[in-house]
Amino acid sequence: MTEFIPPGTRYVDLPSPFPMKRGGQLLHARVAYETWGTLDAARGNAILIVTGLSPDAHAAANEADATPGWWEAMLGPGKPIDTRRWFVVCVNSLGSCKGSTGPASIDPATGTPYRLRFPDVSIEDVADGAAHVVRALGIERLACVIGNSMGGMTALALLARHPGIARSHINISGSARALPFSIAVRSLQREAIRLDPNWNGGEYDESTYPESGMRIARKLGVITYRSALEWDGRFGRVRLDSDRPDEEPFGLEFEVESYLEGHARRFVRRYDPNCYLYLSRSMDWFDLAEYGGGDVLAGLATIRVERALAVGARTDILFPVEQQEEVAEGLALGGAEVRFMGLESPQGHDAFLVDIARFGPAVQGFLDAL
Amino acid sequence: MTEFIPPGTRYVDLPSPFPMKRGGQLLHARVAYETWGTLDAARGNAILIVTGLSPDAHAAANEADATPGWWEAMLGPGKPIDTRRWFVVCVNSLGSCKGSTGPASIDPATGTPYRLRFPDVSIEDVADGAAHVVRALGIERLACVIGNSMGGMTALALLARHPGIARSHINISGSARALPFSIAVRSLQREAIRLDPNWNGGEYDESTYPESGMRIARKLGVITYRSALEWDGRFGRVRLDSDRPDEEPFGLEFEVESYLEGHARRFVRRYDPNCYLYLSRSMDWFDLAEYGGGDVLAGLATIRVERALAVGARTDILFPVEQQEEVAEGLALGGAEVRFMGLESPQGHDAFLVDIARFGPAVQGFLDAL
Repeated sequence: MTEFIPPGTRYVDLPSPFPMKRGGQLLHARVAYETWGTLDAARGNAILIVTGLSPDAHAAANEADATPGWWEAMLGPGKPIDTRRWFVVCVNSLGSCKGSTGPASIDPATGTPYRLRFPDVSIEDVADGAAHVVRALGIERLACVIGNSMGGMTALALLARHPGIARSHINISGSARALPFSIAVRSLQREAIRLDPNWNGGEYDESTYPESGMRIARKLGVITYRSALEWDGRFGRVRLDSDRPDEEPFGLEFEVESYLEGHARRFVRRYDPNCYLYLSRSMDWFDLAEYGGGDVLAGLATIRVERALAVGARTDILFPVEQQEEVAEGLALGGAEVRFMGLESPQGHDAFLVDIARFGPAVQGFLDAL
Repeated sequence: MTEFIPPGTRYVDLPSPFPMKRGGQLLHARVAYETWGTLDAARGNAILIVTGLSPDAHAAANEADATPGWWEAMLGPGKPIDTRRWFVVCVNSLGSCKGSTGPASIDPATGTPYRLRFPDVSIEDVADGAAHVVRALGIERLACVIGNSMGGMTALALLARHPGIARSHINISGSARALPFSIAVRSLQREAIRLDPNWNGGEYDESTYPESGMRIARKLGVITYRSALEWDGRFGRVRLDSDRPDEEPFGLEFEVESYLEGHARRFVRRYDPNCYLYLSRSMDWFDLAEYGGGDVLAGLATIRVERALAVGARTDILFPVEQQEEVAEGLALGGAEVRFMGLESPQGHDAFLVDIARFGPAVQGFLDAL
């Protein structure tokens, strides 16, 4: 595959074997990460960032890679996550194709890619992988763990399974369990990939990459990552330049269609379809109620942090803001001092990536008070 | 194809040639319809129903076909649209495959199905076809035209293009123009069909029906027709019976996935993919601003009806309730006595089909006062 792994990527080897929550184990697996800033002598200024499904560990430019990262406006000197004060670690999720071991990696037992022979990946496995990076860097207790989207799930799993690993937590557009609307969307994304004849039970190669399925999965993702409100203002009913008509039957005609097309083009062949399937399913399975005798608030209440912020966008249809409110409520039951913020960002689930004007001060205000 | 045309279907021949708004014309085309109740001597008690994308003309059981229809709870003796008082006509949209002439029909010029040789279908063509049915039945002035979803667009086009055709109007979960979120969803549904190798530029047959594309299109439709709120209560995180595991990799596991699967199974091979593409695109094109010098409210204000009701569900993400509010505002500018109702139905865009407890009284209250 042609997935691009950022040049500044570093790695932590996981214990071998590394047991997986739903069964099976990994041999000689590793987790990719990048860092920003300097760990202080007391090792007390470390922040961990765990990500959504697709990002790599390159959240922002750093000494190893000056290319802007996916959260460039949030992370750096003088930015909301100020790397003059904080030592920041971002990990790439176990199961991904952006450096960490996943279904696209070579199985040391066979010398060929795992593909569907990779064991089930759960959010808990992703969290355990991140915990190993934290320990390997000599950090006993994080000042804060920040999780966005799927990373919001990963952060909660990390806190529930590794008591004391962090003093505080910021949950951004995350949730403590998957609900049926998002399960339905992800199920359909996976089905689009599985129905692509090129997917072939996971046995594709560069020349038979399941491009159609990945295009549909990505476009459906983008539709659910943004909001109708944003698009009304941004695209309205504006048509594409009529000098360049799309001659395909039922081809592109409106700007919003071209926008989706651009997103699809920038995604296909840059992400491994099997990895996508594995991490997508891990979100459906996630339910912190497992840690609370079947009750999600009780599960959240098992988590011990001193302070927490749960924040999201009121226009988010994939991880609706009520889910961040639930996270706040449950963490408060566990004794944390918690703040919930439902922001008026029009950009939906993706707002934390683009509406830094709103999400930046929320994050910075929390960190400044630590 | 194996599309099922209800046995009680009747037909009105359109003038031949029948000119199409975006160019081209149809020869020997017809529009399918069904009726309920009795037209009174003054021909003043007629109601026309125009439908969403997929329904046929069989809205409810009648003398010709005792099978329950798609709006059975709304239409019949003693029901909200009371057929003891009203003579009701429901037309199948021109361009559909449920009796009216469409891309799956035989082109009299060649003796083979039109497929993509069918001219572009606009909402206005669907409306003009419905107008011919009204005239052919000897109705000069409808007591009311009721349009649901796409039918809400069709009804507005009918009123704008055929002044005086109706005294009143009920617009249910409809809109005066397509906005980018719904355009994006429909564009992706069409792309899923077009990317299915079996679609083959529209040249499929029974044995090569593009089932994968239609499955994805239908499931995406269902996801946008309902609401997260409804599904939280209805499905939660309930899993399928573990005695019958789906052995497919990434196969069905949650009840919500099985629900989508049922919808897909009941749709594929019962609707013609080319017809789906044509009618889907007709919605994207629709913009009543064309009748108001580029302003949608001005376009609505050209419509002359005495009374109107615009009603929808506050959980509708496909035709959000603000669009029904816009319809109400514009019709009021045209001089109508208008009521807008945003109902608290949890079922989203489909609420008018299933939440008769809320939509029934809204419709009945309006009709009773006529």
